[in-house]
Amino acid sequence: MKVAIKEDILKEEDRIGGLNRELLRRNGVTAFNLIGSPGAGKTSLIEAAYHQLSGKASIGVIEGDLASDKDTVRLRQLGLEALQINTGRGCHLSPVMIEEALSGMPLDSIEILIIENVGNLVCPVSFDLGEVAKIGLASVAEGDDKPTKYPLLFREASVVILNKIDLIPHTDFNLENFYQGLRAINPTIPVIEVSCRTGEGVEEWGEWLMNQNRTI
Amino acid sequence: MKVAIKEDILKEEDRIGGLNRELLRRNGVTAFNLIGSPGAGKTSLIEAAYHQLSGKASIGVIEGDLASDKDTVRLRQLGLEALQINTGRGCHLSPVMIEEALSGMPLDSIEILIIENVGNLVCPVSFDLGEVAKIGLASVAEGDDKPTKYPLLFREASVVILNKIDLIPHTDFNLENFYQGLRAINPTIPVIEVSCRTGEGVEEWGEWLMNQNRTI
Repeated sequence: MKVAIKEDILKEEDRIGGLNRELLRRNGVTAFNLIGSPGAGKTSLIEAAYHQLSGKASIGVIEGDLASDKDTVRLRQLGLEALQINTGRGCHLSPVMIEEALSGMPLDSIEILIIENVGNLVCPVSFDLGEVAKIGLASVAEGDDKPTKYPLLFREASVVILNKIDLIPHTDFNLENFYQGLRAINPTIPVIEVSCRTGEGVEEWGEWLMNQNRTI
Repeated sequence: MKVAIKEDILKEEDRIGGLNRELLRRNGVTAFNLIGSPGAGKTSLIEAAYHQLSGKASIGVIEGDLASDKDTVRLRQLGLEALQINTGRGCHLSPVMIEEALSGMPLDSIEILIIENVGNLVCPVSFDLGEVAKIGLASVAEGDDKPTKYPLLFREASVVILNKIDLIPHTDFNLENFYQGLRAINPTIPVIEVSCRTGEGVEEWGEWLMNQNRTI
């Protein structure tokens, strides 16, 4: 019975994720589900996207955090359309939360919507929020073995962003090990190496977003 | 009904956590539940503890990971008694998993047991595995706002280890902001600043563990 109920809930969540995608499509919004560890640099990556896409596409953001609206305040200061969801004890954003958030956003003035999930490499992967792609964010400071230890995300993401590459000289991170581990999980996934701090690679990140937007 | 079932499961989990604690106490084992983000340095912190406590107390380890036995292999090479649990899609270790693991460990030859939870700042906090204390691990590379954004762990932990302090000069991490955020959540929690890479602070970390072991 326990299992059956869990499956019913997941099925209902999936249904709402599908409705979200349909609503977004009708409004010409391309949505991305950004998933990474706490402190991997999700908000910095969104800031970089905002600067890269300035004058090319308008970005909206949904911010998921257990508590605080720090990131939303930070993004609004840039002039971004950002909405905060606080999950309390919740370890991921759910399709229902996104459904509610979308009803309060000016979708007709947004072309690209980035949903910043709760910092967590496990739970967020199992929920389809209505995105066209999951973006898997890893950072150099977390070590080169993350694809091996947390394969779920790296299997299901459409792209991997490797952030904080400026820290490579100051850590034991080995790029070759990282790629080897990642390729064992997902042989074909594209990887963009960036440093939101120095700006390295952020142009490529912006181009990837624009290409997805054009494709869809 | 959904909620009632969930509560029943949690109650049963708590009961088993209590049984684990009783089993550990009878065997003179002091257990710690080590919780931190992916890549915060949990295994490195255990290695440091092993070196610090060498000749003073024998350490056993239970390693929780979605996949791979990398960390267990790494710890066994040091000569540590280590046991791997792979959780698959599971985002945290459960009391039942620990109950099973304990049945396969030589408890009479272990004084301190460190349970390395799945890298996750949210879900592991809600489960009592039978530990005497939760250790909250944060790392400089994750940024100084983690206590504010993930208050659950920092509220319930008995100590905070701040790892990777050697990276402070290479990041935007502000120690004052970190303490301010942490103190707002938990005014009295002790903090040990360490770098497992340079060895700074690891002596204090070893002493903290020994003190807990003596107290209990």
